[in-house]
Amino acid sequence: MIRLLLRAFGLAAIAALSTTAASAQNTTLPASYRPEFGTMWTFDSPPLEYWKARYNFTPDQAWLDKVRLASIRLPGCSASFVSADGLIMTNHHCARSCISEVSPADTNYQTTGFVAATREQEKKCPNLYVDQLQSIEDVTSRVHAKVTAASPAQRVEQRDAEIAAIQRECQQGSGLTCQVVGMYQGGVYSLYRFRRFSDLRLVFAPEEAVSFFGGDPDNFTFPRYDLDVTLLRAYENDRPLRPEHFLKWSASGAQEGELVFVTGNPGSTGRLLTVSQMEFLRDVTYPAQLAQLERQIAILEQLSAQSPEAKRRYENTLFSAQNSLKAITGYLSGLTDDSIMARKRSFEQDFRARINKDAKLRGQFGNAWARIDSAQQQLKRIAGQARYYPLAGSTLLNMAGLIVRLPAQEALADSARLPQFRGNAIANLRNQLLNIPIDPVVERANITAWLTAAQQELDPKDPVLVALLAGRTPEQAAADIIKATQLGDAAFRRPLIEGGAAAVAASNDPLIQLARRIQPIAMPIAQRQARLNYQILSEAERVGQAIFAAYGKSLPPDATFSLRISDGVVKGYPMNGTIAPYKTTFYGLYARNAEFDDKEPFHLPQRWKNARNALDLSTPLDFVSTNDIIGGNSGSPVINRNAEVVGLIFDGNIQQLPNRFIFTDEVARAVSVHSRAIPEAIRKVFNAPRLADELEGRTSN
Amino acid sequence: MIRLLLRAFGLAAIAALSTTAASAQNTTLPASYRPEFGTMWTFDSPPLEYWKARYNFTPDQAWLDKVRLASIRLPGCSASFVSADGLIMTNHHCARSCISEVSPADTNYQTTGFVAATREQEKKCPNLYVDQLQSIEDVTSRVHAKVTAASPAQRVEQRDAEIAAIQRECQQGSGLTCQVVGMYQGGVYSLYRFRRFSDLRLVFAPEEAVSFFGGDPDNFTFPRYDLDVTLLRAYENDRPLRPEHFLKWSASGAQEGELVFVTGNPGSTGRLLTVSQMEFLRDVTYPAQLAQLERQIAILEQLSAQSPEAKRRYENTLFSAQNSLKAITGYLSGLTDDSIMARKRSFEQDFRARINKDAKLRGQFGNAWARIDSAQQQLKRIAGQARYYPLAGSTLLNMAGLIVRLPAQEALADSARLPQFRGNAIANLRNQLLNIPIDPVVERANITAWLTAAQQELDPKDPVLVALLAGRTPEQAAADIIKATQLGDAAFRRPLIEGGAAAVAASNDPLIQLARRIQPIAMPIAQRQARLNYQILSEAERVGQAIFAAYGKSLPPDATFSLRISDGVVKGYPMNGTIAPYKTTFYGLYARNAEFDDKEPFHLPQRWKNARNALDLSTPLDFVSTNDIIGGNSGSPVINRNAEVVGLIFDGNIQQLPNRFIFTDEVARAVSVHSRAIPEAIRKVFNAPRLADELEGRTSN
Repeated sequence: MIRLLLRAFGLAAIAALSTTAASAQNTTLPASYRPEFGTMWTFDSPPLEYWKARYNFTPDQAWLDKVRLASIRLPGCSASFVSADGLIMTNHHCARSCISEVSPADTNYQTTGFVAATREQEKKCPNLYVDQLQSIEDVTSRVHAKVTAASPAQRVEQRDAEIAAIQRECQQGSGLTCQVVGMYQGGVYSLYRFRRFSDLRLVFAPEEAVSFFGGDPDNFTFPRYDLDVTLLRAYENDRPLRPEHFLKWSASGAQEGELVFVTGNPGSTGRLLTVSQMEFLRDVTYPAQLAQLERQIAILEQLSAQSPEAKRRYENTLFSAQNSLKAITGYLSGLTDDSIMARKRSFEQDFRARINKDAKLRGQFGNAWARIDSAQQQLKRIAGQARYYPLAGSTLLNMAGLIVRLPAQEALADSARLPQFRGNAIANLRNQLLNIPIDPVVERANITAWLTAAQQELDPKDPVLVALLAGRTPEQAAADIIKATQLGDAAFRRPLIEGGAAAVAASNDPLIQLARRIQPIAMPIAQRQARLNYQILSEAERVGQAIFAAYGKSLPPDATFSLRISDGVVKGYPMNGTIAPYKTTFYGLYARNAEFDDKEPFHLPQRWKNARNALDLSTPLDFVSTNDIIGGNSGSPVINRNAEVVGLIFDGNIQQLPNRFIFTDEVARAVSVHSRAIPEAIRKVFNAPRLADELEGRTSN
Repeated sequence: MIRLLLRAFGLAAIAALSTTAASAQNTTLPASYRPEFGTMWTFDSPPLEYWKARYNFTPDQAWLDKVRLASIRLPGCSASFVSADGLIMTNHHCARSCISEVSPADTNYQTTGFVAATREQEKKCPNLYVDQLQSIEDVTSRVHAKVTAASPAQRVEQRDAEIAAIQRECQQGSGLTCQVVGMYQGGVYSLYRFRRFSDLRLVFAPEEAVSFFGGDPDNFTFPRYDLDVTLLRAYENDRPLRPEHFLKWSASGAQEGELVFVTGNPGSTGRLLTVSQMEFLRDVTYPAQLAQLERQIAILEQLSAQSPEAKRRYENTLFSAQNSLKAITGYLSGLTDDSIMARKRSFEQDFRARINKDAKLRGQFGNAWARIDSAQQQLKRIAGQARYYPLAGSTLLNMAGLIVRLPAQEALADSARLPQFRGNAIANLRNQLLNIPIDPVVERANITAWLTAAQQELDPKDPVLVALLAGRTPEQAAADIIKATQLGDAAFRRPLIEGGAAAVAASNDPLIQLARRIQPIAMPIAQRQARLNYQILSEAERVGQAIFAAYGKSLPPDATFSLRISDGVVKGYPMNGTIAPYKTTFYGLYARNAEFDDKEPFHLPQRWKNARNALDLSTPLDFVSTNDIIGGNSGSPVINRNAEVVGLIFDGNIQQLPNRFIFTDEVARAVSVHSRAIPEAIRKVFNAPRLADELEGRTSN
């Protein structure tokens, strides 16, 4: 009902509220622009013609270079240089580890917030660095030339070897960090060269109650009231870095209807997936993940209800599971939306028709879709076994399976191993296995739930199921397993993990014995699954190559956690039968706090209550825009035509989740902290006017 | 997608936030309670057993009497006595006519707001009255005894005659206003006796910008920020009324999780409709209404876009059309919701099974459903003709049709007329026809759109369609009609309207000629439609009688704009992927104002901007509860267990619209002004502390 009304009613009102955007979009766009592929453009192929047509905006190379060099990458996140003295802006949730690590023993800066009154008080983050993109080089032909084998697994190996060689060569002597980024599912390989800055210091972080105000309920939603920002400073030789390029602060911040760009590192999208890949996600992968999450959440909620102590104990795990559930439900909703799938099918028809009408292209790529489809169908048939045979239903089960599998995999040549045991994965796994903590209460509940699900999904005569249950109910089996095994004891399992095949073979721990019995049944399925996935990977790369043949570079590649620039417009949208505004304000923060009677997760720290009268409550706090973002874009700057900071990406609304597969901007929005909120809070709540001045460019030295 | 997430995610969070409500609902409820029929209880059958089981609340008769006598009815709305000196609380939108009528020539109190500083300044509302329910008497057997005819139309006539007789008798000499209310579609008739108060004076009305803050976009939605209140005072003999019973003001106002009652006059629901009646609404009535509204809105939006003057001119009509569109879309969404229709079907099966297993009941009522269904099927077959033959597509067309039909209908005995021409309808119609203004630009667009739709829906050889188009396109036909007719000129049409059959027959106005040609084709369809509708009405009354036979009085009757008491709980709900709070605050009012940059309809009057620092911004403004309300409940008081005012109903959220057919309270909510907001605004924004004191019971005399 809500959705219907949104369409029937809200659009006219929205159009009236943001005429700038509407009129800008009336211009004729280049024929090559396909809105469903979104706007995650690479800096080596900026869509100048499209920007000119849509926004009458024509940046020169200097603009593009400056923006690229001011935009930097944090592990898992994005960031930017925002002052002449090396201030770096990113999200609070991107700097969590640093904020915790620099907290003194008696204080947690996550809770209390932190601001350095002087440069001397800025605190060095032990393990953080940023990478600045220096240049991009196309190395596609070099990689493709080395991929000559017939078997998909060997092709992947050849490719990876050449990529490693390119990266090694690039890094030698250059002082740069080099990465070959596969674009278009491997249709293009680009060498990205980065300069790395490893001395980063914490300058400012608000309280988590404010950076993540609204907590899990408000996560992925808008209207939103989060000051999700952290400021770091880059140092070189113990002096603040003077970056050649940084983004100046905009005086007005994001304005309704204005063109804005997001520069950052979107992690992963699936817009070039074939229809059968999407159907597999829709019918197999996501439903299984949701079922697993729902089981886990039910268990955690039950345990949490038992005592306040239990609630605290399971809070983070529960939160993370709920978050994943929300996200995957959103992704799945895109795939189960008939109109989205119909658009995808229609694109694929057009694409394949272009390939098929040219005999040469047909010969090169024509059968890729059928091969992917065949592999997906085979994967679908073994999906139940592939889901349960690796014993991934609880930490203990998983541990037993890995302990048994490790020596066997280690004995093989790297190329003959299952993908998850290649390279230095074995060493990492061993380390994790040694240190992982076990909660027997959670284990028992997890094993029970997992066995119950296995019993429903697998053939009753399935040999792994029979071995696991051995005639018992899931409850009995779980109780027996927990009672009998000593794997939960780190001291007990260390010799098993470090002792190799002989120690495993000699163990009479019942869970290890069980895992040993299952291993020979499970291995052929695991190998078959790996083979089929390699086949898909290899065919997907051919589909990626076919895309150029058919469309050239007019379609932006899928997200690959590499630097992109996305255009969009600051704009509200129809929501809940009415209109979501383009921005929120500090008024709204205090409103939502009062609406929930100051209860968690809508509680405000005392400092914020004290500062209420000092703050200009009408200052914009968060805003939304139509930019194309996804996980990894966290911390990306939002800039205007003058390359000035107008905001800071920290989330997308819930309607944006299906954009993983097809981009739409009717109601999907990127959510940012508004640039004006940051200095206002630093000045009025944290009493650090000099820092606010530095951000706003009011000091110079 | 949103809805999926609401279910998957939000409910646990909501449950955690309102444990009172959840625990209250764990009690075993009486077997007779059927939640889908809602909670619009009559005061002569309060559900004491259900209230006790669900809330452990057992009001005595004195409580019920006091609440009934303090609750009063305004034309089209509800209200209540809220002070010892006769203050009456209702909605601003219920007192619009008075607020306009008492405005001086140079001021519009709708815009400026109004507060009487002294009693002398209180302004008498020229045409307003309230009715206070004194007693209820069951007159079912008296009415049913007089309904003896076989023909449905005659049965209706007999019934109406007896109702009129009962009302007349009751009123004679009693000084009371009497109304026979048909409950259960005529299964029960109750005589309601009212005391009427006709001297009402305006005491306080805020600006419409605040009473209807958020305007059309926010209408039907929550979170909401409206101070939709007006205070009147009842006078008797020029002195303030000292009502025997009034509702005291609660000190705290509505609290999260608490039991609250709404007493008021819900207008109309369709929960006892048969499945085939609902299907007719779903498949015929509502789609046609929506199509008509969409045509109208498209035209008005196009016209409004032409100039600011046009925008102002069509604003109200557009607003009202959009509002209807939103409401009907909501109703329809209930009927197209498979789970709602499945519950309805399952109830009907149970109901019919109860009737059929008793031979006597089967004989009395068993064929009612089939007869209704047969009539609905026949109506469906003539739906296209019934829609277009009355020429209702534009004011001019409608006018021509009525002018031609009036003398013919007037010549018939009242009982032989079409329903819309009975009683004093003809005199009213004549008066309206004389005075209605004509806008040729709107007329031409309306006729074009209506003819286009007729062309799509009617048989190309349909004689009315052929007569209307006469070989022209809809555009040509509309242009010709507008150009040729003089009916838009009031002076021209007066002799036609007053001249009777002879004047109509002699007219050579082309549009009258056209209507004369259509009249003999249209009349048989109109008569057939009327006959079928009488048949349905008459069978529905039998279904209503059957309900007692099957369920007794355990199901509350459908709304009939008579006094009801509905129980519910103050409670937020899952919304937009997160949680809607149970209340909003003044903070939120200023937040939404700032979010939209003070633009209409989110603009705030200067007085409110000036008062910002004086107001306690954390004061609750609006709140939601699970009470069962619908149009007509506007102005109803919301009271707690102590019969104290905690709020004032003014709307439902958009999720509540499908409740017209089946009651649910998962996300459907009644929306009220919080009682604390009213004195806070009167005191701090309108500087009328004495009035605020009177409301809060701080003065006595």
